[in-house]
Amino acid sequence: MISEKIVERLSLYRWLLETRLENEVSNLFSYQLASMACVSPAQIRRDLMTIGYSGSPGKGYLVADLAKSIGKELDGAKPSKVAVVGMGNLGRALVSFISDRRSHLQIVATFDTDSTKYGRVICGCRCYAQNELEKIIKLEGITVAILTLPSDAAQAVADRLEKAGVTGILNYAPVPLKVSKKVYLENRDVTAALEKVAYFAREGD
Amino acid sequence: MISEKIVERLSLYRWLLETRLENEVSNLFSYQLASMACVSPAQIRRDLMTIGYSGSPGKGYLVADLAKSIGKELDGAKPSKVAVVGMGNLGRALVSFISDRRSHLQIVATFDTDSTKYGRVICGCRCYAQNELEKIIKLEGITVAILTLPSDAAQAVADRLEKAGVTGILNYAPVPLKVSKKVYLENRDVTAALEKVAYFAREGD
Repeated sequence: MISEKIVERLSLYRWLLETRLENEVSNLFSYQLASMACVSPAQIRRDLMTIGYSGSPGKGYLVADLAKSIGKELDGAKPSKVAVVGMGNLGRALVSFISDRRSHLQIVATFDTDSTKYGRVICGCRCYAQNELEKIIKLEGITVAILTLPSDAAQAVADRLEKAGVTGILNYAPVPLKVSKKVYLENRDVTAALEKVAYFAREGD
Repeated sequence: MISEKIVERLSLYRWLLETRLENEVSNLFSYQLASMACVSPAQIRRDLMTIGYSGSPGKGYLVADLAKSIGKELDGAKPSKVAVVGMGNLGRALVSFISDRRSHLQIVATFDTDSTKYGRVICGCRCYAQNELEKIIKLEGITVAILTLPSDAAQAVADRLEKAGVTGILNYAPVPLKVSKKVYLENRDVTAALEKVAYFAREGD
């Protein structure tokens, strides 16, 4: 198993490679990819060794080939099915943002407690009543959930998600969640991030 | 100077304390705060020692007093002024999300390249033309910026922000940015976070 940091960087490398492909760049040297990713060329080479990839001394990396090799490591055999719970401003923004980007991450359902949203297609994805959570998750085979909920509702929803079979949670609710070891949890509180940046912005004065 | 991890946890503790205050809880023991924050009581005590705070053995922590002490460390003498660059879905969501939460983080300006947004008040904050960036940042004394831009525009804007005096950037654009050591940078690419969660969600199978 690859470490979290390496997974993060591989994800970034692939994305950078894909943008080069769009610009019809077919070869890249490690120092070029390193410069784009803001890491050292040695770091690039070490990370790519973990997926058994190395470039040729004369030509560097084949861009399309390397992007595919990274995808083989990062993506499952089938696309991961994703649910977004909480379709307020942030939920809607995330759905439209992600839908454009990655074909192997499919947002297949969204949930809300506002009955005026039930059955509607919002940002290209159907919105269900939150009390249908377990039913839809099992039906669709959803394994990953993004939470953009008020903090007082987040833990109860996380418990229900885990029971229904979700094994990965990306949490934007501003509260730490308790999950079992079976679930991989990433907390991304927006305000905490901004407080941190504001603190160090001031310290640098 | 306190480490990034401690700043993150102090920010979380304060937020948890404030929610307790709303529920009229006046005292908390370290094990109670620890349980809410999903850390150990020893961690809580170590973190609070860095700001010179300790509870009393009989009564634990005074909630209001501790929240204020954390604020004294995290917040500047004056509120930090914040700009949001890029008022698409994500920008709007972040503005409304943050505006409700922290009085010492004031979003005083937003910027976009869409001329139909110029001069409008969006989510409670005035939107300016992106070419007014330098002028408004100096006029308002903005030190922190949140970027929710397309990736091809982000670096040029980051360069301009730094020149205009911004010392902290929270970057939601899906591209690594190059800034000088004077600027504190936090990258929060949404898709990368989701890819990571999806990867480890699968590994746990």
